[in-house]
This record gives sequence, C-alpha cells and structure tokens, in this order.
Amino acid sequence: MAKSKVAIMMGSDSDLKVMNEAAIILDKFGVSCEIKILSAHRTPKDTIKYATRAKARGIDVIIAGAGGAAHLAGVVAAHTLVPVIGVPMTTEHLKGIDSLLSTVQMPSGIPVACMAIGKAGAKNAALFALEILGARDKKIHKRLEQYRKKLTKSVRAKNK
Amino acid sequence: MAKSKVAIMMGSDSDLKVMNEAAIILDKFGVSCEIKILSAHRTPKDTIKYATRAKARGIDVIIAGAGGAAHLAGVVAAHTLVPVIGVPMTTEHLKGIDSLLSTVQMPSGIPVACMAIGKAGAKNAALFALEILGARDKKIHKRLEQYRKKLTKSVRAKNK
Amino acid sequence: MAKSKVAIMMGSDSDLKVMNEAAIILDKFGVSCEIKILSAHRTPKDTIKYATRAKARGIDVIIAGAGGAAHLAGVVAAHTLVPVIGVPMTTEHLKGIDSLLSTVQMPSGIPVACMAIGKAGAKNAALFALEILGARDKKIHKRLEQYRKKLTKSVRAKNK
Amino acid sequence: MAKSKVAIMMGSDSDLKVMNEAAIILDKFGVSCEIKILSAHRTPKDTIKYATRAKARGIDVIIAGAGGAAHLAGVVAAHTLVPVIGVPMTTEHLKGIDSLLSTVQMPSGIPVACMAIGKAGAKNAALFALEILGARDKKIHKRLEQYRKKLTKSVRAKNK
Amino acid sequence: MAKSKVAIMMGSDSDLKVMNEAAIILDKFGVSCEIKILSAHRTPKDTIKYATRAKARGIDVIIAGAGGAAHLAGVVAAHTLVPVIGVPMTTEHLKGIDSLLSTVQMPSGIPVACMAIGKAGAKNAALFALEILGARDKKIHKRLEQYRKKLTKSVRAKNK
Amino acid sequence: MAKSKVAIMMGSDSDLKVMNEAAIILDKFGVSCEIKILSAHRTPKDTIKYATRAKARGIDVIIAGAGGAAHLAGVVAAHTLVPVIGVPMTTEHLKGIDSLLSTVQMPSGIPVACMAIGKAGAKNAALFALEILGARDKKIHKRLEQYRKKLTKSVRAKNK
Amino acid sequence: MAKSKVAIMMGSDSDLKVMNEAAIILDKFGVSCEIKILSAHRTPKDTIKYATRAKARGIDVIIAGAGGAAHLAGVVAAHTLVPVIGVPMTTEHLKGIDSLLSTVQMPSGIPVACMAIGKAGAKNAALFALEILGARDKKIHKRLEQYRKKLTKSVRAKNK
Amino acid sequence: MAKSKVAIMMGSDSDLKVMNEAAIILDKFGVSCEIKILSAHRTPKDTIKYATRAKARGIDVIIAGAGGAAHLAGVVAAHTLVPVIGVPMTTEHLKGIDSLLSTVQMPSGIPVACMAIGKAGAKNAALFALEILGARDKKIHKRLEQYRKKLTKSVRAKNK
Repeated sequence: MAKSKVAIMMGSDSDLKVMNEAAIILDKFGVSCEIKILSAHRTPKDTIKYATRAKARGIDVIIAGAGGAAHLAGVVAAHTLVPVIGVPMTTEHLKGIDSLLSTVQMPSGIPVACMAIGKAGAKNAALFALEILGARDKKIHKRLEQYRKKLTKSVRAKNK
Repeated sequence: MAKSKVAIMMGSDSDLKVMNEAAIILDKFGVSCEIKILSAHRTPKDTIKYATRAKARGIDVIIAGAGGAAHLAGVVAAHTLVPVIGVPMTTEHLKGIDSLLSTVQMPSGIPVACMAIGKAGAKNAALFALEILGARDKKIHKRLEQYRKKLTKSVRAKNK
Repeated sequence: MAKSKVAIMMGSDSDLKVMNEAAIILDKFGVSCEIKILSAHRTPKDTIKYATRAKARGIDVIIAGAGGAAHLAGVVAAHTLVPVIGVPMTTEHLKGIDSLLSTVQMPSGIPVACMAIGKAGAKNAALFALEILGARDKKIHKRLEQYRKKLTKSVRAKNK
Repeated sequence: MAKSKVAIMMGSDSDLKVMNEAAIILDKFGVSCEIKILSAHRTPKDTIKYATRAKARGIDVIIAGAGGAAHLAGVVAAHTLVPVIGVPMTTEHLKGIDSLLSTVQMPSGIPVACMAIGKAGAKNAALFALEILGARDKKIHKRLEQYRKKLTKSVRAKNK
Repeated sequence: MAKSKVAIMMGSDSDLKVMNEAAIILDKFGVSCEIKILSAHRTPKDTIKYATRAKARGIDVIIAGAGGAAHLAGVVAAHTLVPVIGVPMTTEHLKGIDSLLSTVQMPSGIPVACMAIGKAGAKNAALFALEILGARDKKIHKRLEQYRKKLTKSVRAKNK
Repeated sequence: MAKSKVAIMMGSDSDLKVMNEAAIILDKFGVSCEIKILSAHRTPKDTIKYATRAKARGIDVIIAGAGGAAHLAGVVAAHTLVPVIGVPMTTEHLKGIDSLLSTVQMPSGIPVACMAIGKAGAKNAALFALEILGARDKKIHKRLEQYRKKLTKSVRAKNK
Repeated sequence: MAKSKVAIMMGSDSDLKVMNEAAIILDKFGVSCEIKILSAHRTPKDTIKYATRAKARGIDVIIAGAGGAAHLAGVVAAHTLVPVIGVPMTTEHLKGIDSLLSTVQMPSGIPVACMAIGKAGAKNAALFALEILGARDKKIHKRLEQYRKKLTKSVRAKNK
Repeated sequence: MAKSKVAIMMGSDSDLKVMNEAAIILDKFGVSCEIKILSAHRTPKDTIKYATRAKARGIDVIIAGAGGAAHLAGVVAAHTLVPVIGVPMTTEHLKGIDSLLSTVQMPSGIPVACMAIGKAGAKNAALFALEILGARDKKIHKRLEQYRKKLTKSVRAKNK
C-alpha cells in the first residue's frame, strides 16, 4: 500500500503560522504532507491545476485554510474528489466569522468539511485527516488511540 | 464604437427570479445582456472559461449573483479584468448574511463590487453597470439622468 | 473487503426530513446506512454506547445532525475514532447559527467535520462520506465521478 | 443537615483563572467546593462518571464553564438531576458568542442555567448557587442579604 | 414543610402562550404556580413590589419571560434573593437574540439563570425550578427521575 | 426661566471615563449637570427614587449609560416622563452589541433614545440633550449653531 | 405659545404602515404632524431642503423612519438642530439589524435618537417627541401621565 | 482623451491611513487622484457640492470611505452618476460590520459598489476603479495585466 499523503494549502503565507499546526500533527504521526501557498484569487490557475491533479499525484486528503471571502476550500473541492477539509482563518476585522460562513455554507453537491476558526481548526483538520487515513492504515489508527489516551491523561494530570 | 454588453451570471436557476431584475433594467436602457447559469462549484470549468473569454467576447461588465458560500463573483473576478459586480442572494437559513460576507470580503488584489442582498442588489448591479458604461456612451448617461429624475418624481408623487 | 456502512444519527425525529437527504444519496450510491434517533441530552447513554461500538460494528463514517446547543456530533466524536460529520439543523428562532457554532467550534483534539446548515448540509455529508469511502472502493469513486458529471450537465441544461 | 457542596467543573485549565471567581465567592460564604478539570470531549468518560455520581457524593449544585462548542454543561446536565449552571468562556476569535449559544440553547427536557460570558458569569454562577442553597440554609441566606447590602453600599460610596 | 410554589411572570400577555409551557410542566409535577403579567417598563412598581414580597409570600423560584430589551428577569432579580430564571421571548424582528442578550449578560452581583429562547426555554425553566425544589422534596426528585426515563423511552420508541 | 439641568447616570464607575464626554460638552455649553453612579441592579431602589424625583428636582433630560444587559436607561424611563437618552457602553466580550440591543429594543410605551456605543454615543447624548433644551433656550440654540460651524470648519481645515 | 408640530418622514411609502403608528399617537395627544415621503437617496435635495427649513417652519421634532442602509435620519440631522428621532424599518433579508446599525452608530457631533426596530419604535418615537414637547406644554405632559396610567391599568387588567 | 481622475473621499482624517492605500495604487498606475476629507454629517453641504460637481470637474470614479453609520458613499451616490465605490472603515466597537451594512445595503435606484472592510477594501477600490478606467484606456488595462501577473508571481515565489 502506498504511503498516505496529505496536502496543506493556504491562500497566503500569513496563514502559515496557523496552518503549520496541522503539519506538526501529521509529522508526529509519520504522515508526509506537502505545504502549498495557493490562492483561489491570486493564483487561480495553479490552484485548479493542483486540485485537479491531486488524486493522481497520490494526495489522500486536502486541508485548505483561507480567510475573509474564503473561497479556497470550495474552489479546490470543485475540482477534485479527494476529501477537502476547510480551515477558516481569523480575519482582522470580523475575526473569522466571514471565513467560517464562506467555508461552511457550501451548496449541495460539492462538500467541504469545515473545522473551527484558527489553530484549533488547523489541528483538528490534521486529526480528521488521520481518522480518514486510519480506516485503512492500522498504524495510524493505533497512534490515534494513543493520542486520545494522552489527551485524556494530560487533562487528568491537571486535576492534581 | 461597439455596442455595450453586460453578462449576468448566477450559480443556480433558482436565482433567476432575483437576477432577472438586473436584466429588466438593462433591457429598458437598450443595453444587451446575456444570462448564464454558471456555478463556481458545479460547473467550475465552464465558469472559468466564460470569465477568461469575457473580455475578448466583448463583455463590458459582469454581474454575478450567488448565495451561501457565494464564490461565483470572486472566482470570476480571479480570471478576468472586466469589472465584476457581485449580488449576494438571500439564503434559506442565514438570509444572505453568509452570501454577503462571502462576496464582499475579498482579499486585496482581486476586487468585486458588492451590492445589497437580493432584488435591490440585482437592480443596483444593473444601474451600476450602466454608470460604468455611461462614462463612454452619452446615450446611456442621458437615460440614467432621466431614470433618476423619474425616481425623484415617483417619490414626490407619493407625497400627494 | 467488507461493505461500507454509514451511520446517520440525529437528535430528534423532527430532524428526519432533513437528514433523510443524506440517506437518499447513500442509497443511490448503493451504500448501506442505518438511521438512529439518538440524543446527546435525552438518551446520552445510548448515544455513547452507539458511538463507542460504532467501529467494531463496522461503521465507516458517522453523520450526526442536531440543532440548537447541538452537542450530538461533538459527543459522538469524543467516543470514537470513526470520522464524524456534523450537520447543523435549522432552529426556530436563530435559524441554525446556534447549531452551526455548537457543531463547528470544536476544541483541538476532537475533530468534527461540519457541513452547511440544513438540507444542503445533509446532502453534502453523504457526499463527503462517499469521498472518504471512495478512496478504497473504486466503485464508489466511479459513481462520484458520474455524479459530478451529472451535476455539471444539469446546470448546463438549464442554460438552454 | 449535611453541609452544602458545590462542584466547579471546567473543560480546560486555561479556564481556571475565570472560574476561580466562582470559587472565591463560595469560599467567602463558607460553602465548600471542589474544582475539577473535566472535558466533555477529552475526558468524556470521567465527565459522565462525575456527573452521574454527583448527587450521591453530596454535590448540591454544579457549575460548568466551557468555551467554543461548549458542550460541558449540557453533557453534565444530561447525566444528573443536580442543578447545572453553565458559564460560557470567552473564545479567541468569536469572543464567547459561540460558547454562549452552545450553552444556552438547550433542547427542552434537559435544562442548563446559563450565566453571562466570562468572569461576571462565573461570579454570578456562584451567587446563583448560593441563592439555591440559601433556601434551606438560613446562614447562607443571611450572608446573601449582607452581600447585597455591601454591593449597594459600594455603589453608593462611589457617588462621593 | 410548606408546599413549594413557583411564580411565572411575563412582560406581556402575548407571552402567555409560550410561558404556559412552564405552567403545564409544573402542574404535571403537582407544584403550584401563580402566573402574573408584570412589566418591568409598564408596571414597574407592581413588578418591584411583587419581587420584593415574593420570598415572604412563600415563592421558592421565579420564572420571568420577556422579549426585546428584556429587563424583567434582571429587574426582579435586583429586588429579591429568590432564584430568578429568565426566559428570552422571541421577537418579531431580531428573533430573540435581543431578548437573549438582555437576559443573560447580567453584571456580576445579580444573577439571572437564562434558558433557551422560546418554548424550549419555558419548559426548561420549569424543569430547572423542579431540580431546585427536588433537592429538598423527594417526591419532586422522584418524578424528575421518572420524567427523564420517559424522555429516554420516547426517544427510544422513535427508533422503531 | 429656571436654569436647565441634565442628569448623567451610569451603572458603574468604570463607565465614568466614557460618560464624562457628555459632561465635558454640557460644561462647555454652560449647562449644569449632575453625575450619578446608580445601578439598575445593584442600587435599584436609589435608581428608582432618583428617576421618580428627577422631574420635581428640575432635571430636564436624563442621560443613562450602561453595559451588558443594560437595563439602566429602560428602568429609569419606566419611572419618569423626563426624556431619557441611553448610551450603550462597550463590553469586554461582545463589544457593546449586547448593551446596544438591551438599550434600544424597548417595548412600545416606554421610549428610550439610544445613541451609538461608547464615547461617540456619550458626546451625542449631550448634544441631543442640548437640542432638546435649545428649543426653549435661545442661548443654547445659538451655541449649538456655533458648535456645528466649528465642526464644519475643523473638517475643512483638515483638507489643507 | 405656538402650537407644537412634529414631522414624520420616511424613505418610502412602503414604510407608511409602520410610521403611521407614530401619527396615530400624536393625533391622540392633539399634536399636529405632517407626514412626508422623502428619501435620502432618491430625493436628496427635497430632503435637505425640508430638513434645513424645518426649524423656521415651526417643526419641533422630526421623526425619520428608513430601512437598509438607513441614511435618512442621519442626513436630516446633519442639516438641522431640530431633534431628530430615527426609527429603523425592518428589512426583507436582515430584519432591520442593518437599519438599526445605520441609524444608531452616528459619529460624534451629529446626534440621532434611535428607537427600536419597526412599530414599537414608531410608537415610541411619537411618545419621546411628546416627552420633549411636554417639558414646555403642560397639557401634553398631563396627557402623558394619563397615558402611562392607562398603560399600567391595561397590564393590570390582564392579570384578571 | 482627457486624463482619468479618481476622487478619494473620507469622512474623517482618521481614515486617511487606510484610504491612502487606494491613493498609493492609483499613483503606481499613473492615475491622478484628489483626496478629500468630506463628511456626510459634519460637512454635508461641501459633500453634496463636491458630489454634484464631480462629473463636470472630470472625476471618473469616486471612492468613499466611512465608518459607523457610514452614510458618505450613499449620500455622494445620491448626488452624482459617477460610479461610487464604498469602503467600510473598521470601527472601535463593532469592527466595521456597522460600516459594512450601512454602505452595502443601499435601496434600489442608487447603487454603491461596496468593497471589503479596511485596507483590503481600500486597495481593491483603487483596483476596481482602474478596471473601470481600463476599459477605455489601454495603458491602464495593460498595467492591470502586469499587476495580476506580479500578484501571481509573488504568491508563487512564496512556495519556495
């Protein structure tokens, strides 16, 4: 079985600090990922080309972070059948409620799996990608079980 | 000088009733328009092709109406330098605030001129297109002056 | 390979009309699903038992629809590593913005994949589940390609 | 009569600074409380066990603070008949409007008493718990009367 | 022990249909209640008099429903130490988000226990009052246990 | 004719910095004002007494600033026929949208004149009070004309 | 003393049904009013002329109702020192939250007294105008006292 | 052909820092612009005079930035047929959602082309003005093509 691979896309390099949280988690789980700055608006052709070829290039899940009129996840989802997870970035003025609605309110036919705004969303995007991959890769599934146990332990430890 | 031409695009035929308000106004002003159902998500390639060729095909202004995660105007604007006017459609649950934010909060670099939600927005999109065209076509400018006068008169008439 | 199976859960039978949209799509794709009324608040033990056993019972994806303080998807996700897709139901007063925020703003560690409010969300939940399943089941992937093509065709047909 | 006892739960130790306001007030009134970090998502089993046993362990009121998709108060309320008071924590991006709606919009059948976002809410949660306890414990009731009088005096003092 | 008694107040008789849901539940549990139309704005003196005397008159819990700039619960809470539960009424234009914020965002010192907007909130107000009363009245506590069991059963029944 | 007098009330001394903007303007216009910390919740009796006697004590206009579940202006208005101007204070979490809705959405019968959130609102409350007083006091009216002229001049000066 | 006179302006005749509530109240109090359809956008010159001359024509208070980007009250206030009361009309899509913010969030220097959205706001605008006029017209003040008493009585009557 | 000219108006000099982003872009494109501090509320006559004469003075496009009850763009649009682009300024409390709704929700008849809140909106206003001007000025059109290419390149460069 080919190794799993996740793509992490974002509309601007200013999103990198947030989206890197996803990369860190994938890395911890030993899942390779490629990070791409690709904008639905500023590099639309590159974005579409990347989305269109993702499947053939072996990408299993795409994580797309964008802010404001956040079209990236939706545009990518329109050009591929690889599952697309959207992460709404916070914004200077509306604090990400614009990004959230632009990402989650997709019309029927083209699904995007929306996560929470910001870093929690980026982390969970990676974990959700791992849950998808874990269905066919027992190693990943095992690590997810361990991750959850650690999570539980770290909360329990705080009670002392 | 070639005749002015406006494109009216919308993401779904359910938007036709609202967007037709734009067509009616353009028609009254003798400006030809073509109406297209083109979805950023369901027919992304057609949409991009249409946007890319719009200039060469003689389109002077594009009016794009879409609802929810309303990516149409933004996606079109990313592929053309023809001015794009966005009309946020109302939505079943969030009443168009999702469409509005998805249309207006464009990142710097790719402008979309956003109008009000629904029919008022569709009408104003046509009038704004006519203001753009009126700059070089005196006939249109004249008619706009007459339109405003009529508007004023109709309000005045109601006072009696 | 065992047949794929999707669980569709909802907090109340009043959500059935909306969530049935997911079942209809899964049915069209020949993927079996089981529909369960399970409330995070009114039948918490049943819900947790169901979530905990889902994996062992062969459930590949869980779709959970709930409204208001919509805790169902989050509670289920806390008890399983099966991917959980949340569908915010519309609500009488706040029209689903409460359900949306209660579903999407999950803390880091426990991901829920949030869809749009209402029927569009329910349909897309099924399609997203199919994209997950399609990664290992070529028949489903093929049908998704056909579904997208039909989608495109149906939009194109409306232009005539 | 057994001594009154209040439980203060929170989803994360980062909520401690805010929720401590409740503990300080209970302490001033001589009511013992136990503080627990228990997450509806990260330690769901511990949370449920705690909620289920609360009554038998002599807990009279439960105060639960959580942020974002704030499921803690609702999940606890689903497993006990001890009155549950919810305190929505502020959040980085949406400033607690997500926590508020996730806490207050409970479905009929399982009540949660929601307080204001943040510290004011935490303080009032303690005072509301004391009002509940004061009904059967005259000492607490007396102290509440004194507390109100002091409140009034402190406002009056500021007028000088 | 004196019989428990709950007061149900509302700002306008147009709220009666919603607030009656609370009365129905209290009635089912054999807890007597008195229903009062008392407005924080239109009958402020009556409201204050009622709040001030509630304790002495044997009222154990006050449920107050109001809409818009919903000051009723807060004003009542300012004049009594009897626990006050607020129910935000839906409003014609803002659908109760105004009532919700006016009820829940109380300043520290004067707590109001806020429920969900509308009927679900009214029902839960009654159930929360019963939880408070159940602490010292075993019959009420028993009935609450039965109520929860029935709730669970009714959801379970729907699965068939 | 008796000298005009304006009362400036606020719920907490933390509002003083903002509400002082009103006092500064009244002072500039030579209109005397009295500043009172009076809370609808913490000193309800003092507040009502003050409101009830305002007219007899020669108060011509009342300006009331409050935040969160901002009941002050409404409660005062319920006890007097002196015009009440409400100023919504900003709040830590919801930034004053709670204060605004709690102040402006008054039920029919008891009007409150709501200003903008924060300092701009406090200043305008004073100016609106002066417009009311200016109707019968020509000196005030004259000064308002001068104030407007200065406003215009200061904007014009900035163009250079 | 000259008779008091109130102007009721509105942006569109579709607002007449709502704004008429103000006229009915003024009429009951024997205060004459003139109703004008004057739009800040469609008849800007007429609007400004009317505002500029209002004082000289004996108008004591102006009530201005408008919806959406509701500029009417603000534009009128910019051209007169007569007190301007703004009434936000409900809107098809955003239900008047747009009108409310456009009316209330005036910059410092030019005050508008904002009322609630819709009919309650229109009624209260008239009552607030009467409170202003009542300061110098004892008959109006008397009637306001009677009005409040009736209000109280009507609420009391409903308790029986 | 006369040289193109764009007017940049703003309600207050505090908006200058944001609106200057538009001037910088126009300057880069060699399009002359004039910057004016003109307030719909504080200098209404100057504003109207400027708007009325804009066309005759050779202004091709007007960009108007304002915050809060942002009436500037709408008031200007009411007095001219020159295309008006509105830029909602951020605000201290509501972060520009008030400015956005006040700018975008124009009634049918008088269009304003609304951009995003803040700097992104100011930049895009200039770019949209250039798209309008580019239709008849090939040099501008060429430069816009180059601008887009640079935009694309700068995003691509970040991938390395």
